[in-house]
Amino acid sequence: MESWDKIISMPLPGRTTKPRNSGYTMVIDKGLGVRAIEDLMETASNWIDNIKLTFGTSAFYQENLLRKKIDIITSAGIDIMPGGTYLEVAFWQGVLDNYLNKARQLGFTAMEVSDGTISIESNERENIIKKALDMDFKVITEVGKKDAKESLPHSKMHKLIAQDIRNGAFKVIIEAREAGKGVGIYDSSGAVKENDVNEIISGVEDIDCLLWEAPIKNQQQYLILKFGANVNLGNIPPDDILALEALRQGLRGDTLKRAYLKNPNYT
Amino acid sequence: MESWDKIISMPLPGRTTKPRNSGYTMVIDKGLGVRAIEDLMETASNWIDNIKLTFGTSAFYQENLLRKKIDIITSAGIDIMPGGTYLEVAFWQGVLDNYLNKARQLGFTAMEVSDGTISIESNERENIIKKALDMDFKVITEVGKKDAKESLPHSKMHKLIAQDIRNGAFKVIIEAREAGKGVGIYDSSGAVKENDVNEIISGVEDIDCLLWEAPIKNQQQYLILKFGANVNLGNIPPDDILALEALRQGLRGDTLKRAYLKNPNYT
Amino acid sequence: MESWDKIISMPLPGRTTKPRNSGYTMVIDKGLGVRAIEDLMETASNWIDNIKLTFGTSAFYQENLLRKKIDIITSAGIDIMPGGTYLEVAFWQGVLDNYLNKARQLGFTAMEVSDGTISIESNERENIIKKALDMDFKVITEVGKKDAKESLPHSKMHKLIAQDIRNGAFKVIIEAREAGKGVGIYDSSGAVKENDVNEIISGVEDIDCLLWEAPIKNQQQYLILKFGANVNLGNIPPDDILALEALRQGLRGDTLKRAYLKNPNYT
Repeated sequence: MESWDKIISMPLPGRTTKPRNSGYTMVIDKGLGVRAIEDLMETASNWIDNIKLTFGTSAFYQENLLRKKIDIITSAGIDIMPGGTYLEVAFWQGVLDNYLNKARQLGFTAMEVSDGTISIESNERENIIKKALDMDFKVITEVGKKDAKESLPHSKMHKLIAQDIRNGAFKVIIEAREAGKGVGIYDSSGAVKENDVNEIISGVEDIDCLLWEAPIKNQQQYLILKFGANVNLGNIPPDDILALEALRQGLRGDTLKRAYLKNPNYT
Repeated sequence: MESWDKIISMPLPGRTTKPRNSGYTMVIDKGLGVRAIEDLMETASNWIDNIKLTFGTSAFYQENLLRKKIDIITSAGIDIMPGGTYLEVAFWQGVLDNYLNKARQLGFTAMEVSDGTISIESNERENIIKKALDMDFKVITEVGKKDAKESLPHSKMHKLIAQDIRNGAFKVIIEAREAGKGVGIYDSSGAVKENDVNEIISGVEDIDCLLWEAPIKNQQQYLILKFGANVNLGNIPPDDILALEALRQGLRGDTLKRAYLKNPNYT
Repeated sequence: MESWDKIISMPLPGRTTKPRNSGYTMVIDKGLGVRAIEDLMETASNWIDNIKLTFGTSAFYQENLLRKKIDIITSAGIDIMPGGTYLEVAFWQGVLDNYLNKARQLGFTAMEVSDGTISIESNERENIIKKALDMDFKVITEVGKKDAKESLPHSKMHKLIAQDIRNGAFKVIIEAREAGKGVGIYDSSGAVKENDVNEIISGVEDIDCLLWEAPIKNQQQYLILKFGANVNLGNIPPDDILALEALRQGLRGDTLKRAYLKNPNYT
């Protein structure tokens, strides 16, 4: 008998396949064990492009376990990177080269370059990106401060995004932290501040360059309805990957409804 | 030595055993892998009656994996059904028969019939229920819209519930979505709107016909304290099954307290 | 090549190692299966001191499974205890001795003694602690009521803490329930009520005696910033252990920032 996706068409069609330039999904991993990672690979590896071992959590694994986990993930065709905070600590402590070498040796394939907590001057940022690229990492940078009191002006954000892309970054993350509340484009309840989204995109040449951290469902829904099924999303909790895919492709009420209202008689 | 349940009596006694007509627990599954499902079966299969692969998430599994997962679940004496949204999409696209056949072939044992997003006329709903029953599915229908702006009048809800039961539905779900906030009997913070609960039950002959979606603990607690240990509850997150069972049987403060206050000296 | 922790220094140094008297981490377990427990042991056993099978959830395991789970946990050098509520039920029903014997036989190594729901007089509390100590359990008591309407005066709390420690308790838990909202030192949104924290510690001789339930990140962050990396924390969700460790050791923005601002040039 036909497979299920031959019987039913996706209400929001056009979902990209791996390797993706748009429709990128980055998972936030706070410490999944190998059994949980094997479960995740079996159920969802088609829908995951990148797994981030967030904050400095990579520091707490036994090396053997970390290598094994990285191996399972990369074998499934998924990039893996340490959290940007760990790189910031290495930069601050003046041990960036050793840090990058160790990450390479462990098997990490991507590198997040951020300045969410530690100040990093523009020329130093450029230098870090260059070093990581030279070592064959896929570089994903981030704009935005973790502390709401230090929010970045949009004009500066536009400049930084353009510069990072010019310097070879694959994507630029719009910071929202693990919680997605009271930071960047989200208010303290996690609702999207539409003006901020519009101001950000007004100064960006290619929207596919942006990777929006969107840990909460209403955020994912807003961004999918605004930018389409193939918006780039990050900080997705591992348990939510199939639910996100249902949102992206219109198999969940919130995004199905738009497709249905456009064509109620399905012709 | 005696087993633990011989030593200590359940503060709220009378919990039903499987197969249950009342005290039914339906789990919301957003994409558990087989290791997580095996863990769940080992720790909690006695306390689970039905697992719903929610929204259209069933669409995203490799067929082999889906068959394996369904097999583990049904072998533990638990019903499994796709989310109602996926059936709504099939109905809308005019491929309902193929959809039901495929679900049967994959091993699903129950079918959720809803109209949370897609409009389905009363006679068509009757027809869907009949088809699913003819194919030997346990049919569980749902009343309520996913979009808070379209909430169903209680009189219409009463009529629909009576009609579905008459047509052979095993239970009728009172919709609350995955989040349990700002929908059906719950306000935007997830608190129970008691008037709404009372109005719904005022027009229902047999309360055991209702299956209340109650993803949040305070909702489960309210419904257990109102209707007893054996109220039917749905959209329970997999991690919360033993915690729910502790609530049902009085081994958690919130429901233990009532039993204790009735009989402080335990005579 | 050097291991990662040789390359990068922990921004908040001085983290204790096992067995710990301070910096104790207690996990709240609502029903993890053996695969999830094995994952947790492999990724995080160095950072976990105690696992609590919360509420009366221990009642719902098959005995073989419970023994297996306890064995995996204790073999990793971690204490395990049933939730205090289950002991309260046993006390109320007059079967405390049998309860403790059964727990011992099953392999539990620690015992939580609380009166969150059931009233227990001071001399009876002393007696329970003594019995549990005589049976070689590590005793961890708890102060605070589960029902916000019954909150304990601080003077009474101080007396109880001093008495429990004198009677041999290893730590005294400051109650916050699973949710950490509207109970003890947390307001209804989960924010810390600083005055309450200060009043509690004002009457306590040795702060290392206290084990603060802190299920939410902002609570963990507050307590770490106030008391240091080695504050004792409990009711930590299993998924958050490495994230908590990053907070404790300064590998997460919120606590890294303080270390960075003190020494921006890292000399």
